[in-house]
Amino acid sequence: MPAKTLRSIFIAATSLACLVAAASAFAADPLPSWNDGASKKAIMTFVAKTTERNSPDFVAPDNRIATFDNDGTLWAEQPMYSQLLFALDRVKVLAPKHPEWKDKEPFASLLKGDVKGALAGGEPAIGAIVMTTHAGMTTDEFDKIVTDWIATARHPVTKRPYTEMVYQPMLELLSYLRANGFKTFIVSGGGIDFMRPWAAKTYGIPPDQVVGSSGKLKLDVVDGKPVLVKLPEVNFIDDKAGKPIGIQQHIGQRPTAAFGNSDGDQQMLEWTTAGSGARFALIVHHDDAKREWAYDRTSHIGMLDKAWDEAVAKGWTVVSMKDDWRAIYPQERK
Amino acid sequence: MPAKTLRSIFIAATSLACLVAAASAFAADPLPSWNDGASKKAIMTFVAKTTERNSPDFVAPDNRIATFDNDGTLWAEQPMYSQLLFALDRVKVLAPKHPEWKDKEPFASLLKGDVKGALAGGEPAIGAIVMTTHAGMTTDEFDKIVTDWIATARHPVTKRPYTEMVYQPMLELLSYLRANGFKTFIVSGGGIDFMRPWAAKTYGIPPDQVVGSSGKLKLDVVDGKPVLVKLPEVNFIDDKAGKPIGIQQHIGQRPTAAFGNSDGDQQMLEWTTAGSGARFALIVHHDDAKREWAYDRTSHIGMLDKAWDEAVAKGWTVVSMKDDWRAIYPQERK
Repeated sequence: MPAKTLRSIFIAATSLACLVAAASAFAADPLPSWNDGASKKAIMTFVAKTTERNSPDFVAPDNRIATFDNDGTLWAEQPMYSQLLFALDRVKVLAPKHPEWKDKEPFASLLKGDVKGALAGGEPAIGAIVMTTHAGMTTDEFDKIVTDWIATARHPVTKRPYTEMVYQPMLELLSYLRANGFKTFIVSGGGIDFMRPWAAKTYGIPPDQVVGSSGKLKLDVVDGKPVLVKLPEVNFIDDKAGKPIGIQQHIGQRPTAAFGNSDGDQQMLEWTTAGSGARFALIVHHDDAKREWAYDRTSHIGMLDKAWDEAVAKGWTVVSMKDDWRAIYPQERK
Repeated sequence: MPAKTLRSIFIAATSLACLVAAASAFAADPLPSWNDGASKKAIMTFVAKTTERNSPDFVAPDNRIATFDNDGTLWAEQPMYSQLLFALDRVKVLAPKHPEWKDKEPFASLLKGDVKGALAGGEPAIGAIVMTTHAGMTTDEFDKIVTDWIATARHPVTKRPYTEMVYQPMLELLSYLRANGFKTFIVSGGGIDFMRPWAAKTYGIPPDQVVGSSGKLKLDVVDGKPVLVKLPEVNFIDDKAGKPIGIQQHIGQRPTAAFGNSDGDQQMLEWTTAGSGARFALIVHHDDAKREWAYDRTSHIGMLDKAWDEAVAKGWTVVSMKDDWRAIYPQERK
């Protein structure tokens, strides 16, 4: 085929694709799983005023940064953080190589099926479980472990894959923001290496746009090839005051909009809204015991107390899962 | 204007823009400042084979990651790293507030104009200068200091702005890779907060795609507003073995292609090429004493010794600035 013909075909095809894209920009409701109400209106008003060129609140595309907490904001965090359930599964897999765990807490309780007893040891117990299951292998090995687990593990209550325990309205919100030129990031207290293997497929967020807690790494050489070994030592905790720090270190810009669900997100929302120009802060309130879980001020997981008071005082958007969301999970999409 | 008419106009305009974009994909040489030769050919062959859909070396767009060292790879690093020259300028600005510096090294020598004497103190002296000039203010304040400096400071030899001391062939390479779906990152030993304020404008690389060395941060509240304070404490050194670690922590994927110029980049190039599938490693060799500087095995700045030997042994692309580059700086563009 002559180059000129090829070129004409290529141009025609590209133009057609663009035409379709342009037409779909005028398509129906971008947030179909959100009920009409104050929350949906606040989101759409914010996007319109920051993206319309003649708006006094216009934000240049390069500065449109949106950060999302993960646990409880993008996916379910009850009855326990998924990463902790992953760690518990790993303890069972690793147990045959650790006969000493039979008499050593928190592992002994865990292997007897007594999760509550294992976690009674508090932070040190959780730390021991996390370090044992998240260190001592290369980054490539850990990536494969997580990829295999997420493909096969099931949520203890719903028996569905964890990647189906994500919130359909938030998936729509991520797409809607990206379609309007926002760069979307995860900023989570969860492990950065635990989220990256599935975040792109699940949320459309590439590995370099995932910010999270991390352990230290060491460059080593095995069989003449460089490897990165995960050390049992904390590098960074991306929670509470750590979130603005993680944002600065990874993203290097203050977000235009931030989305969370608990007191762990309070500093991220404060940091975001303290910037000049139009800013947006949103909190997902878990108030739907029927379709999901209902918890807030007194919950050990995802406690929403001080951040809720601040949201009310400052006029941040507080989403009621019960009233604002038509569907919770993708499979309920109407 | 009826919505339907508006829609038609919008679609027509978008299609036209797309048509122009499609046509320009067939435009002239994307690397006009590169002489025809082995280096240019190696780059273009790599890009073709990783981006043509039916190629056995095809790399999915999501995995096209290209990392670039900064000093000596994207901009000049002689007669001294620009960030050190920035720090020396800052010492002069801050001196009136520090009368004690008159008798305290390395500041005393520095204020007498004796840069060599100041740096005779080695790493501790450089550390003292960097910490004094890069900490003790908020991230917003430091951003402004760097933005003001880069807009006004002049290179000591050429008297040109530092942002004009960038390499035209590398600017073309960055654009060429991006046009072919690669996400471009800086991975530099330089300070992350020093590079971010001007990297977007100069290189087209946004703040979140800049990886570098950093100090620790602290979230504080001043006048009821959160601020991030730069502490005089090292957080991370993104050099040598630190580069693969910085890549993993920030990018979370092994690069497809990596570009450097010194032994400080060796581990990044090794890490990149140790991945499966097609990988590309390139070293810029400073061998043009007439148009730039000539230095390699014995230079204190940008020493290229072990990485050069490895490049030759492994067949990495070694660019001769003298022979491969038609122009060095943007203003010499033919």
